[in-house]
Amino acid sequence: MNFDYTPEVEQWRARMRDFSERHLLPANQAWHRESAAGRHPIELLDSLKSLARAEGLWNLFLPALRPHEPGTRLANLAYAPLAEIMGRLPWSSEVFNCNAPDTGNMEMLHLFATPEQYDQWLKPLLEGEIRSCFAMTEPDVASSDATNIRTSIRRDGGDYVIDGRKWFTTGALHPRCRFAIVMGVSDQGAEAPAHRRHSMVIVPLDTPGVRIVRNVPIMHHYATDGHCEVEFRGVRVPAANLLGEEGAGFALAQARLGPGRIHHCMRTIGQCELALDLMCARALERRAFGKHLADYANVQDWIAESRLEIDQARLFVLRAAALIDGAGNQAARVDVSAIKVVAARLQTRVLDRAMQVFGAMGLTDDTPLAFLWSWGRALRFIDGPDEVHLRVVAKHELRRAREAAASLAPYFTPPAIDA
Amino acid sequence: MNFDYTPEVEQWRARMRDFSERHLLPANQAWHRESAAGRHPIELLDSLKSLARAEGLWNLFLPALRPHEPGTRLANLAYAPLAEIMGRLPWSSEVFNCNAPDTGNMEMLHLFATPEQYDQWLKPLLEGEIRSCFAMTEPDVASSDATNIRTSIRRDGGDYVIDGRKWFTTGALHPRCRFAIVMGVSDQGAEAPAHRRHSMVIVPLDTPGVRIVRNVPIMHHYATDGHCEVEFRGVRVPAANLLGEEGAGFALAQARLGPGRIHHCMRTIGQCELALDLMCARALERRAFGKHLADYANVQDWIAESRLEIDQARLFVLRAAALIDGAGNQAARVDVSAIKVVAARLQTRVLDRAMQVFGAMGLTDDTPLAFLWSWGRALRFIDGPDEVHLRVVAKHELRRAREAAASLAPYFTPPAIDA
Amino acid sequence: MNFDYTPEVEQWRARMRDFSERHLLPANQAWHRESAAGRHPIELLDSLKSLARAEGLWNLFLPALRPHEPGTRLANLAYAPLAEIMGRLPWSSEVFNCNAPDTGNMEMLHLFATPEQYDQWLKPLLEGEIRSCFAMTEPDVASSDATNIRTSIRRDGGDYVIDGRKWFTTGALHPRCRFAIVMGVSDQGAEAPAHRRHSMVIVPLDTPGVRIVRNVPIMHHYATDGHCEVEFRGVRVPAANLLGEEGAGFALAQARLGPGRIHHCMRTIGQCELALDLMCARALERRAFGKHLADYANVQDWIAESRLEIDQARLFVLRAAALIDGAGNQAARVDVSAIKVVAARLQTRVLDRAMQVFGAMGLTDDTPLAFLWSWGRALRFIDGPDEVHLRVVAKHELRRAREAAASLAPYFTPPAIDA
Amino acid sequence: MNFDYTPEVEQWRARMRDFSERHLLPANQAWHRESAAGRHPIELLDSLKSLARAEGLWNLFLPALRPHEPGTRLANLAYAPLAEIMGRLPWSSEVFNCNAPDTGNMEMLHLFATPEQYDQWLKPLLEGEIRSCFAMTEPDVASSDATNIRTSIRRDGGDYVIDGRKWFTTGALHPRCRFAIVMGVSDQGAEAPAHRRHSMVIVPLDTPGVRIVRNVPIMHHYATDGHCEVEFRGVRVPAANLLGEEGAGFALAQARLGPGRIHHCMRTIGQCELALDLMCARALERRAFGKHLADYANVQDWIAESRLEIDQARLFVLRAAALIDGAGNQAARVDVSAIKVVAARLQTRVLDRAMQVFGAMGLTDDTPLAFLWSWGRALRFIDGPDEVHLRVVAKHELRRAREAAASLAPYFTPPAIDA
Repeated sequence: MNFDYTPEVEQWRARMRDFSERHLLPANQAWHRESAAGRHPIELLDSLKSLARAEGLWNLFLPALRPHEPGTRLANLAYAPLAEIMGRLPWSSEVFNCNAPDTGNMEMLHLFATPEQYDQWLKPLLEGEIRSCFAMTEPDVASSDATNIRTSIRRDGGDYVIDGRKWFTTGALHPRCRFAIVMGVSDQGAEAPAHRRHSMVIVPLDTPGVRIVRNVPIMHHYATDGHCEVEFRGVRVPAANLLGEEGAGFALAQARLGPGRIHHCMRTIGQCELALDLMCARALERRAFGKHLADYANVQDWIAESRLEIDQARLFVLRAAALIDGAGNQAARVDVSAIKVVAARLQTRVLDRAMQVFGAMGLTDDTPLAFLWSWGRALRFIDGPDEVHLRVVAKHELRRAREAAASLAPYFTPPAIDA
Repeated sequence: MNFDYTPEVEQWRARMRDFSERHLLPANQAWHRESAAGRHPIELLDSLKSLARAEGLWNLFLPALRPHEPGTRLANLAYAPLAEIMGRLPWSSEVFNCNAPDTGNMEMLHLFATPEQYDQWLKPLLEGEIRSCFAMTEPDVASSDATNIRTSIRRDGGDYVIDGRKWFTTGALHPRCRFAIVMGVSDQGAEAPAHRRHSMVIVPLDTPGVRIVRNVPIMHHYATDGHCEVEFRGVRVPAANLLGEEGAGFALAQARLGPGRIHHCMRTIGQCELALDLMCARALERRAFGKHLADYANVQDWIAESRLEIDQARLFVLRAAALIDGAGNQAARVDVSAIKVVAARLQTRVLDRAMQVFGAMGLTDDTPLAFLWSWGRALRFIDGPDEVHLRVVAKHELRRAREAAASLAPYFTPPAIDA
Repeated sequence: MNFDYTPEVEQWRARMRDFSERHLLPANQAWHRESAAGRHPIELLDSLKSLARAEGLWNLFLPALRPHEPGTRLANLAYAPLAEIMGRLPWSSEVFNCNAPDTGNMEMLHLFATPEQYDQWLKPLLEGEIRSCFAMTEPDVASSDATNIRTSIRRDGGDYVIDGRKWFTTGALHPRCRFAIVMGVSDQGAEAPAHRRHSMVIVPLDTPGVRIVRNVPIMHHYATDGHCEVEFRGVRVPAANLLGEEGAGFALAQARLGPGRIHHCMRTIGQCELALDLMCARALERRAFGKHLADYANVQDWIAESRLEIDQARLFVLRAAALIDGAGNQAARVDVSAIKVVAARLQTRVLDRAMQVFGAMGLTDDTPLAFLWSWGRALRFIDGPDEVHLRVVAKHELRRAREAAASLAPYFTPPAIDA
Repeated sequence: MNFDYTPEVEQWRARMRDFSERHLLPANQAWHRESAAGRHPIELLDSLKSLARAEGLWNLFLPALRPHEPGTRLANLAYAPLAEIMGRLPWSSEVFNCNAPDTGNMEMLHLFATPEQYDQWLKPLLEGEIRSCFAMTEPDVASSDATNIRTSIRRDGGDYVIDGRKWFTTGALHPRCRFAIVMGVSDQGAEAPAHRRHSMVIVPLDTPGVRIVRNVPIMHHYATDGHCEVEFRGVRVPAANLLGEEGAGFALAQARLGPGRIHHCMRTIGQCELALDLMCARALERRAFGKHLADYANVQDWIAESRLEIDQARLFVLRAAALIDGAGNQAARVDVSAIKVVAARLQTRVLDRAMQVFGAMGLTDDTPLAFLWSWGRALRFIDGPDEVHLRVVAKHELRRAREAAASLAPYFTPPAIDA
């Protein structure tokens, strides 16, 4: 057991922090002003992407599988602390071609794309030339239970025909977004078992019948790249656009989610660290009723509790990353559910405290806190609601307990009672 | 002791609910679409105001003081349940001329305006012809400790000259907003005691030097009427615009806050009831993993805990209203601090649960939840941060305890120990 | 609506406080030393009982039903603040013949006893000459779901024969305890509906086959009067000892619980007030790191939050008391479930804070805090576990919501989307 | 970074678990019955100690310093998982000569004893022949701020004379307890700085003037070995009994606390694991209202949240252990404060949930839960109250933040406002 980053990881962290200080932080205000003015800051991003790629900070998220692909693909345990640094500027992951949902799509395509799909869709994604989105959640059903998903993917001759409505399709408004991976019911007759009825297809966004209905605000925040409601009406794509095989939708989704959740969690840790930095700085600077806020014991408690919670959560996430690296997504399934809940709750808790220390300013857009808090609230649904993940953990624990129950008898100590 | 509303109050409640069903609810979607389109829904409001006034639902908030004023002014305990109903549609208070910050301003003017001020400013407010705002909070200092306020109100001949910067000045963008009441330092030399150095002046918004810098978003939400940042630069008003006397700023602010906080709290209760209604309805309708959400014990806990908390909070607020009615603002000071904290925390807690039951939809603008949650978060600062009010309660409690301490000896029961 | 105690109630409160100061508090240390030495302080109690009865403070808990009974029977709303005062000394209720479980037993007998049962059992209870206990909870099943109860009450000729095992039978070790009311299954064949299979019988404690197995500690605390495990083996009582009719066990239990829970809750409020008094007194007196504990903002928060919670809970309990008085036990069923949860949680929360302010001393028996905390923890089971009561509240709320759901449509404001 | 135990540590764990199953668990009921009967189970312990020592499971806690001492002294990171196993039976640490407060005393003597003190006191402790206690906390002052300690240690010729009163002196009633290490004020004139005025002396318990006043119950629980109140009245010991030098009391205390807190925390983790095991087993077995408790979503949440919290806390504690091993007590000071708070809070939280699943039985002594909960409550004071440790963490965090504050400017994004 060893809690230090390896020297190699420390080097990566130094390079990332250095890049952030030299290039990202100086661009932060410009990014926000462009976005606030309703303009996509794509030129800013393009120039930063060139810089990052030139410095070898590219595709860091993708554990090595095939040679000759662009980028520097690290183990999850090595990537995690870099995702933490990226988290401090929520828009910065794309600079390193490491942003959701493209990362998850690239992972799936990496594992399951046919050679043609590889060339047409994955290669330009790996190069950062195009963007993609992932259409899973539906407005009309509780999508947390993915068996509820209703969008139909119907085979019709050499095509699939897609009909349905999705929302929270992130990235669909990015000017370079070219395709969606769509999850839907391919087994209309419900002949297969419940978890073998869904499939995924690649749907180019310019296919007739695809309509981006609106950019859905999350806690009043409109993402530049969109969390979109998208309508699919009689959308027809060639059968070759099927990802994996028919009925493999759930299996694909599982493959997608392990590392993606690690990324989310580590970015969340980074955001919480930023919030703690800001909270402390504000507490040291502001005075009320004759003392600095930092001198009030309740504010000190908030600071200390944030530190306790962040450090614990980080270790927990890193352990899950190590488990994925060592034993694979499936073996880490319960651990990944666990960190998802921990990270989402951590964010709202730490951010809430930071906002309180900032007073009214914490509610405005002048600090990153309001956005991060909103994002944290959304994280309690993104990648599945907390309740679903708690259930996964509980069921695992109960299975374990069922085996151990017999050995617990010696721990009970009722008094000897004569008959 | 009696926990029933009087028959008169029940009649008022019925009239208000009836008006809401006939006129307000049918207008809700129109109001939101106008606002979302960036248009102030003033015509909609005007027509509803005419209806409300015609039905005698006007100026309900203002306990009777002088005859011959428009409106039906009720005791706080009678008004409270009506404010609860208004709370269900956050934009509806204005229909009854009962919206903050005008209500607080009308209360202050009612008590302290000179006859000239009365005619010029209060009368049209009572008639609903103009609107007003209140410029207190400043971006550069912890305004929770109002002795920090720095905006200067300097006497210069027959005028006062105002210089400073305010924010969270609610209502300044209402198309009928005509004046602000501004709090600032009038005792530049700091000769008076700390709580006698501030004054309030009436500043018409069209006075040269007044500039609305921006509409500050609260958790990304831009209010139609604005929560504005306002700059005052060399703003000159006649000395007759002074409210009360020089140095009376704190005393005026105190007079303003008691009933105003009751209103906020009761509207909050109404919003929590609405959230609970929506949470239950959603839980009954949505299914996941083979059961309705309403059948999950954790969702049941959220529902029950919300009911427990709402009912307790309502009683607590009503008791404070009764205390103001019976003993005055000053006697109810600690109670009003107490309900402020309770209501603000209640809102974020209940709304958070409701949002969780709604899934991703709870984050959007399609339901009132995201707005109400944001507003609840802001309530933890509006009318002063929770921490300041907890301090007020604690100090009161400690004062009480200091007197009682001696009588506690018999409760200690150390064993008899021989010397 | 009116939040003041009536002048009559205020008089009762003054008499009770006065009696407590003159007689109870001076006896507190003696009571504890007797108990700690393992001697039942029955003589002390007897002399205090005489005093209380002489002053007319007797059987205050029992709303008037029949004339010519000893004692001064008050409405629940009048009795509640007196129970609050009694709560400050957990042993003091018996002085006024107002202690559980005798109060509940007296209520049941009052309503359902035959004339013979009345004379034999209720009269001496009302006079305070004997004590009783109530045998409901069983160690082998989840008794929170009372349909699980297994003790059998079998008709055999002119007798009932009882077999089973109970625990948490409070008061069975009181030297004057003469009988238990035992709940068990009378419908062995399970022919009646699930809630009509249980009955209650009066079992004199000296009946052959009754054995007090042990005094069960609650959080290591052994009650002087016992929370006993009791075995019933072939216990035979005359059929005339049946309470009410066969199969009426559940109905009787319901009748018993309404006011009894109010009493518990109000005593709990009194205990929380005492804890808050002690917490404040300690915070004012102790110093650490150069300040009194009362000057730390986190300690202030604990004090203020305790006040906020206590005051809300008291109002909530009083409202339920008023509802029982006005509309009866059945109408108040959900409210009584609600206050039960609120009060039990309140106690552990407030006591926990008080203990923390007292430091290590709070863990000892030198203050009442450790006992009250333990008792509070037990309250989360006594009268049913919180979870059962939350379920009752949730189901009621969901029923209400089912009716209201249709009226909620106007609150949803999705944007207009063209087809 | 690596989250696996080394093969060596895994071997130790297997040996310890094996020993526990073969020898400890079968003795658990006997231990409890002896203790409940008021007899010290010293013979049982002696025979288990012989077995443990014979198997080489002895003095595991003491990182190697000098050769030729009995026992197998491990690094803290290797010892921690063994302490976790010991935690499952709170009385078992002594079997391995690893119980507080002897461990802390041995650590201090190991570092600071003179050769004579080594031979007289440390050797028999290392052999398990005698026991010791540590007299620090005082009833009359807030001992969390150790500068408050008042017991005087006055030089008088060749002796020190000790006067004062201590409590929570654990182990003083162990039949083999031979001496206390006493902390007191040696600098009566307060000439040295506040942290250089206290000293520690070794006081044989049979010295005239030492009186064990009582065994203080913790939440009504009387420890077999005692948490004693001890009076020192004119107690005279030779000057050679001074530990370290005069005025070194605080420095000695610091040296003592690092690893000791790790031990406490790891035992706590073990206790929480046991509670989770029991909670799951009970939830699987009990039925209420037609379902097993394990099928209720709220119970599932409690189980899952316990797992999330335990795993995070364990990693946090292990990281602190690794830090002590690698960088020393002083470097790990803040981390040790952090884990102390985390572990103590964890215990009350997890135990509380387990008790709730067990129903009334959870309150009794029939399961280990009531004891463990009480102990967890006490842990919030043992080794210092949580509040003191949160303060340490907060101050460290604020120091760090003070340096970083300047670099935070780019994160603020106020809109551009024209002058």
